[in-house]
Amino acid sequence: MSSITGPATGSETEIAFERAAAHESLFSERAAHIKQSAVRDVFELSLDPSLVSLAGGNPYLQSLPLDKLAAMASELITNEGMTALQYGSGAGTQELRAQICEVMAEEGITGVDPDNIVITTGSQAAQDVACKVFCNPGDTVLCEDPTYVGALNTFEAYQVRTEPIATDEHGLIPAALGQRISELRADGARIKFLYTIPNFNNPSGITLAAERRSEIAEICVAENILILEDNPYGMLRYTGEHIKPLRADYPDHVIYMGSFSKILAPGLRIGWAVVPTHMYRRFYLAAEAVTLCPATFNQMLISKYLKGHDWRGQIQTYRELYAARCSAMLEALDEFMPETVSYTRPEGGFFIWVTLPEGIDTYELLAKGIEAGVVFIPGAAFSPSDAPSNQLRLAFSAVPEEKIREGVKRLAPVLARAIAENGVR
Amino acid sequence: MSSITGPATGSETEIAFERAAAHESLFSERAAHIKQSAVRDVFELSLDPSLVSLAGGNPYLQSLPLDKLAAMASELITNEGMTALQYGSGAGTQELRAQICEVMAEEGITGVDPDNIVITTGSQAAQDVACKVFCNPGDTVLCEDPTYVGALNTFEAYQVRTEPIATDEHGLIPAALGQRISELRADGARIKFLYTIPNFNNPSGITLAAERRSEIAEICVAENILILEDNPYGMLRYTGEHIKPLRADYPDHVIYMGSFSKILAPGLRIGWAVVPTHMYRRFYLAAEAVTLCPATFNQMLISKYLKGHDWRGQIQTYRELYAARCSAMLEALDEFMPETVSYTRPEGGFFIWVTLPEGIDTYELLAKGIEAGVVFIPGAAFSPSDAPSNQLRLAFSAVPEEKIREGVKRLAPVLARAIAENGVR
Repeated sequence: MSSITGPATGSETEIAFERAAAHESLFSERAAHIKQSAVRDVFELSLDPSLVSLAGGNPYLQSLPLDKLAAMASELITNEGMTALQYGSGAGTQELRAQICEVMAEEGITGVDPDNIVITTGSQAAQDVACKVFCNPGDTVLCEDPTYVGALNTFEAYQVRTEPIATDEHGLIPAALGQRISELRADGARIKFLYTIPNFNNPSGITLAAERRSEIAEICVAENILILEDNPYGMLRYTGEHIKPLRADYPDHVIYMGSFSKILAPGLRIGWAVVPTHMYRRFYLAAEAVTLCPATFNQMLISKYLKGHDWRGQIQTYRELYAARCSAMLEALDEFMPETVSYTRPEGGFFIWVTLPEGIDTYELLAKGIEAGVVFIPGAAFSPSDAPSNQLRLAFSAVPEEKIREGVKRLAPVLARAIAENGVR
Repeated sequence: MSSITGPATGSETEIAFERAAAHESLFSERAAHIKQSAVRDVFELSLDPSLVSLAGGNPYLQSLPLDKLAAMASELITNEGMTALQYGSGAGTQELRAQICEVMAEEGITGVDPDNIVITTGSQAAQDVACKVFCNPGDTVLCEDPTYVGALNTFEAYQVRTEPIATDEHGLIPAALGQRISELRADGARIKFLYTIPNFNNPSGITLAAERRSEIAEICVAENILILEDNPYGMLRYTGEHIKPLRADYPDHVIYMGSFSKILAPGLRIGWAVVPTHMYRRFYLAAEAVTLCPATFNQMLISKYLKGHDWRGQIQTYRELYAARCSAMLEALDEFMPETVSYTRPEGGFFIWVTLPEGIDTYELLAKGIEAGVVFIPGAAFSPSDAPSNQLRLAFSAVPEEKIREGVKRLAPVLARAIAENGVR
């Protein structure tokens, strides 16, 4: 007997409609808050080979030691398959957690106990768990304006109020943070954490200045607001001086999130969170309630790679590669962009943030860009407000230099036309 | 400047305490509801080689074609590394979704469109996403009594009211389901779904009888309650006749969850959900908000395995292996157990459910079992109530036959003593 069978009077379509309508009442309130990522919107477009995609922030993997990784994967299954293919601990393997401490030490985070680390299915999953552990519906979280679209999607799924804080060319503005906190508190907001990407922000490419880091941390400490520090690009600095993550000096107030997606391979989906001891148990149990345990095979493969390969050298290779691509994009922007267009000059990472004159909505330019053969991400995607934005993100990570130049060259007249029309209005 | 520095009057310990107290107010309400899985409690114990662990339901992987899998992993990285190590689609690869349709066809689920499948980080993640999409705090979900402890942990993280429904040796009792729904409705409950493991239930090993399946589905359809059908063990039937999953006949009312953890390898953390079209978009976006995408490498490795190996033959090998272990456990139970102890006789899966006389709390027997050299999971773990239980779960999947016999032999006097003492009270 099948539920497809309905009353003799109703057509198939009517029945399907009624069923969907009945089920509509079953959705959670939060389901209505989950939206399609604008980055995903243009994901399929990016696959069209006639287009130059400056949209996706995929890392460039061609420089990986594939033969070595292949041999490691093979050895792992042959010699340790019984462990690698089996369930593991919810917090991740002891070996990888210890190695992650070495990786973080490169950035100036030292003295971490591996027992404060939870390995997650990419650092995205760590953001999800942080929301699970800290956010009730209606709570407030703070973020940079602009910020990572994936984090915004995660926050929306927890029905939090996401409040963007103004940034300038040195990152988050401490005075703006302090003032917004006061306003929000006066408004009765329950502020849980500040989500920040201090190094080479996605999408802006901007780095939080060293002198602002302690200032921002002290504001959060004084206000009893946690800091969620997301640092996937931190090791990909190709110019300027290294700045310690906030976690280095504020171990009890920062949940630090790292990832192997940009320094090794995103297809393995392995990230981690460093969680202060007094929050660790809840964080770890919440992570376990989502996926039981991170993929054992993937963790062990990364352990083998970190042991058996010059991973610091590999990161240096990446740095040089992205430096060249960033330069190529900046040169092309300098050459082709109209005078009234400005853009950031990142010291690392994958992205450049382009600002057009006020009054232009870059979402409306997306279709025109595609007509001209280039894809970008409109700025509205990186703000919780969905308001029209005169900014856009360009990613140089995945595209060879000559194509970057070609993409910028195609984009320039689209922007020039929009600027001219904007002037007329 | 470090936040460790505090007022000169406070000791380090006092400061740490104050900080933890301040942060305590930041936890979400749901964080208080997330508890340690009793299965995890005994996970570390299970590693002690002097103990026979009948606790963990790990699959037995020794029969896997490791050399072949090793070669496949190696080829995959060498030849398709640029794709396998890169980000992928949030719903999973097209190829694996098409292959999953073939896998499900073996169980009688046919005509599934791959576009109704979302690949997840194990089927645990699919349970989490289902809660995300359907459950507001205070909503009610129904489950079998007893049911999978991991699902209970996931439900608790969503602050739902989990209502166990009585089962007998043929599984969920339709009349009990109908009656409980009426009572709950009268009480104002908002019931979202029935979570069921119809085949070889974890922990009970019981299978929902064929004639009850449509009866239960029709009750749910009439009451506008979704069905979450969790079927990780369905292909591991070693005796009796195959029974179609509920999804086969009720495609619009069932969210079906499958997994490669028991038919291939849990360390790859790949499961899936089949979601009716009218719910698919929300489900898929919610999944994306948690992990962006499932691990590309793991999906492609499974695709290669399904194409390049006799996976049906491998499942047959597993069936024979678990059949032998199940028989060994039943024989040992028949031989050693006191008369007043009863147990299920599963037709598939990993578990046997043991019932002691009323009045005995098996949680109190855990320490005594360990003293006697055997580990099991107390029955209370598998119920949302946490009430004392006179039942316990034995897993035969991970232990060789002679050890199973030894474990049951060690357990029997512990139970006999408890029964004798219980009689005296």
